[in-house]
Amino acid sequence: MAELNISEVFNASKVLAGVARHPKLIGPVKGITEAEVYLKPENLQHTGSFKLRGAYYKISQLTPEEKAKGVIACSAGNHAQGVALGATHNGIKSLICLPAGAPISKVEATKALGAEVCLVPGVYDDAYAKAIELQKEHGYTFVHPFDDPLVIAGQGTIGLEIIKEMDDVDAVVVPIGGGGLISGVAFALKTLKPDIEVYGVQAEGAPSMAESIAKNERIHLDAVQTIADGIAVKEPGVNTFEMVQKYVDKIVTVSDDEIAAAILYLLEKQKLVAEGAGATPLAAVLFHKLPIKGKKVVCLVSGGNIDVTSLNRVIARGLVKSGRDCNLVVQTADKPGQLAEICTIIGQLGGNIMSVKHDRVDTGNNINGCRLLIEIETRNMQHVKEIKQALREAGFGVD
Amino acid sequence: MAELNISEVFNASKVLAGVARHPKLIGPVKGITEAEVYLKPENLQHTGSFKLRGAYYKISQLTPEEKAKGVIACSAGNHAQGVALGATHNGIKSLICLPAGAPISKVEATKALGAEVCLVPGVYDDAYAKAIELQKEHGYTFVHPFDDPLVIAGQGTIGLEIIKEMDDVDAVVVPIGGGGLISGVAFALKTLKPDIEVYGVQAEGAPSMAESIAKNERIHLDAVQTIADGIAVKEPGVNTFEMVQKYVDKIVTVSDDEIAAAILYLLEKQKLVAEGAGATPLAAVLFHKLPIKGKKVVCLVSGGNIDVTSLNRVIARGLVKSGRDCNLVVQTADKPGQLAEICTIIGQLGGNIMSVKHDRVDTGNNINGCRLLIEIETRNMQHVKEIKQALREAGFGVD
Repeated sequence: MAELNISEVFNASKVLAGVARHPKLIGPVKGITEAEVYLKPENLQHTGSFKLRGAYYKISQLTPEEKAKGVIACSAGNHAQGVALGATHNGIKSLICLPAGAPISKVEATKALGAEVCLVPGVYDDAYAKAIELQKEHGYTFVHPFDDPLVIAGQGTIGLEIIKEMDDVDAVVVPIGGGGLISGVAFALKTLKPDIEVYGVQAEGAPSMAESIAKNERIHLDAVQTIADGIAVKEPGVNTFEMVQKYVDKIVTVSDDEIAAAILYLLEKQKLVAEGAGATPLAAVLFHKLPIKGKKVVCLVSGGNIDVTSLNRVIARGLVKSGRDCNLVVQTADKPGQLAEICTIIGQLGGNIMSVKHDRVDTGNNINGCRLLIEIETRNMQHVKEIKQALREAGFGVD
Repeated sequence: MAELNISEVFNASKVLAGVARHPKLIGPVKGITEAEVYLKPENLQHTGSFKLRGAYYKISQLTPEEKAKGVIACSAGNHAQGVALGATHNGIKSLICLPAGAPISKVEATKALGAEVCLVPGVYDDAYAKAIELQKEHGYTFVHPFDDPLVIAGQGTIGLEIIKEMDDVDAVVVPIGGGGLISGVAFALKTLKPDIEVYGVQAEGAPSMAESIAKNERIHLDAVQTIADGIAVKEPGVNTFEMVQKYVDKIVTVSDDEIAAAILYLLEKQKLVAEGAGATPLAAVLFHKLPIKGKKVVCLVSGGNIDVTSLNRVIARGLVKSGRDCNLVVQTADKPGQLAEICTIIGQLGGNIMSVKHDRVDTGNNINGCRLLIEIETRNMQHVKEIKQALREAGFGVD
């Protein structure tokens, strides 16, 4: 593509002035001592993610003829809502193709923003093919989720806002899916303040950009699997690959467990709901993946659209991972008094029993034995160890 | 008490300048058409609630002698953390008495902020008695959670911030527990801009201030019961009762279900974690309890300290209440093919089945029948009705 010009990003900023929310940076975040960490909370943005910026700016720049025909996009997530709101605000029609299995909540949210929704049987690729077909048939403009210079310019406005609010920031950490967000942000930052480090974060289960940069060519992953569905992208864009090569200093990956821990951290400590993708930058910081010791760092919380069922699962996983919830399997003889003894031991050590299940039929059991599944609220991993140790010393089998 | 002077609130604002966070108002909130509604997100405050303001200011105004002896408080919640942080910042010792049954997470959070914790066997009243005993014994200063003029002045800084950021606000909605927060906010607002309406919200299960105002005397409730634990207060303060009489225009109550719905709304639509108390103002707006048609309204989200287990329960309740999750009990004959037929009907209507349980032993059943407990993800109450209707038409018994 033609080299993006910084004036395009400034123009996007002007266009978005009355549209996008500009919540202040939050921080410094307590409890992180390695660096002075701030959050840019784009989860508080309208539609719950930064995607509105690029989609809105792209749509605002269409010709009157293009506007009259309307726009089309393919997405089951944040891009869909960004396009829907962007189109509705601009008074034009939008059609969003979604795979038929998309969660009801996402379909409803997209409709509520004024889009027409086309549910396509199959998976994302089928919905994409349908969108391209409809685009050709009706002359809609296809709004790409990331590989479009105007979309990239729109996302770049986040970079301008960070510099404006904190001109001595040392490093900015950004999630990478297709690469549109980091391309825009890194381009804006490096153009205006080349000394700012820009770090990208991908999910371990979807490292398409990380591998592409490592191999110096765009690669295509056959499968991606991560709780960070917003960045589960199989292949970087042509433009975004080039821009990331040029402007991004380093890319790291984080595991689903690390992402879950970061989501829980944001929820409990910062009272913010982040989706998987949105929590990856903080995950990279919390798990020491980045060279930021003593630096002033902004982590972009790119979005907060996680459905509440997933959120429940993430909470459960995060509690276990941090030793605050523990599921013990205890082998006992199947006779009266055993549970009382076990509960006494746990209670005396300050563990709070949440639930107890008896399992007598599992084939792995001694026929005269009983297996107890005990869920305990605990303080931390050390506490879990103490409880296990005490039970073993009392003669119970603990897995 | 001596009449509070507005200069005290301005002084508190100065003292808190480098201490309290000042996140911007969020809004206008989409999807509410009755009024133009903004949120003052004190859940994003340090310690996750506004309580830091009053506690910090109170502690900052102690004499050197008082500071040398340290402070004591009794709380299982936000006040504990506010006092702990306030004391630690001011370099003085704090002792917090908590009932021994307090959640581990709250005890740990209070300790992490530098307080010494004294776990007292029994309930809140026992912890309170212990705190008073220790205070007398050691000469600590007792920091009252609400009925202290300096604490009230500290909370009043929120009123100053609202006017500064939005000088044409018509009404401000504030939760009421003991009344410290609304006393401070209403005093500041009415002193500077008497035209602003100030509304208070209590939980239906803990309406101590509402009833006291109605009866024109401070009443004491024997029991309080609400998910909004932060405002489950049995009796208003002496000072706060007077100030609410004088400065507050109207008090309404909201039910636990309404509070749960507001928590869910904040979580899903605003990506904010609010605790029960913090969600009551928005609950009052969402359920049309206030005369705010066409007005510009600020709802105070006073705090976000809800433990994640409660959050899970609230989410579950909120989803059911809004018709987005539905638990059907369906009576069938116990023979092959029944479940397939039921699932087909539900699937064709767009319901997403989350779980199915078979119940064959419940005494209420026909011995040849089977009861299915089916959890379905649905769009709304109308959708639930459609599904029930279709099942009935196909001959199944639906509760």
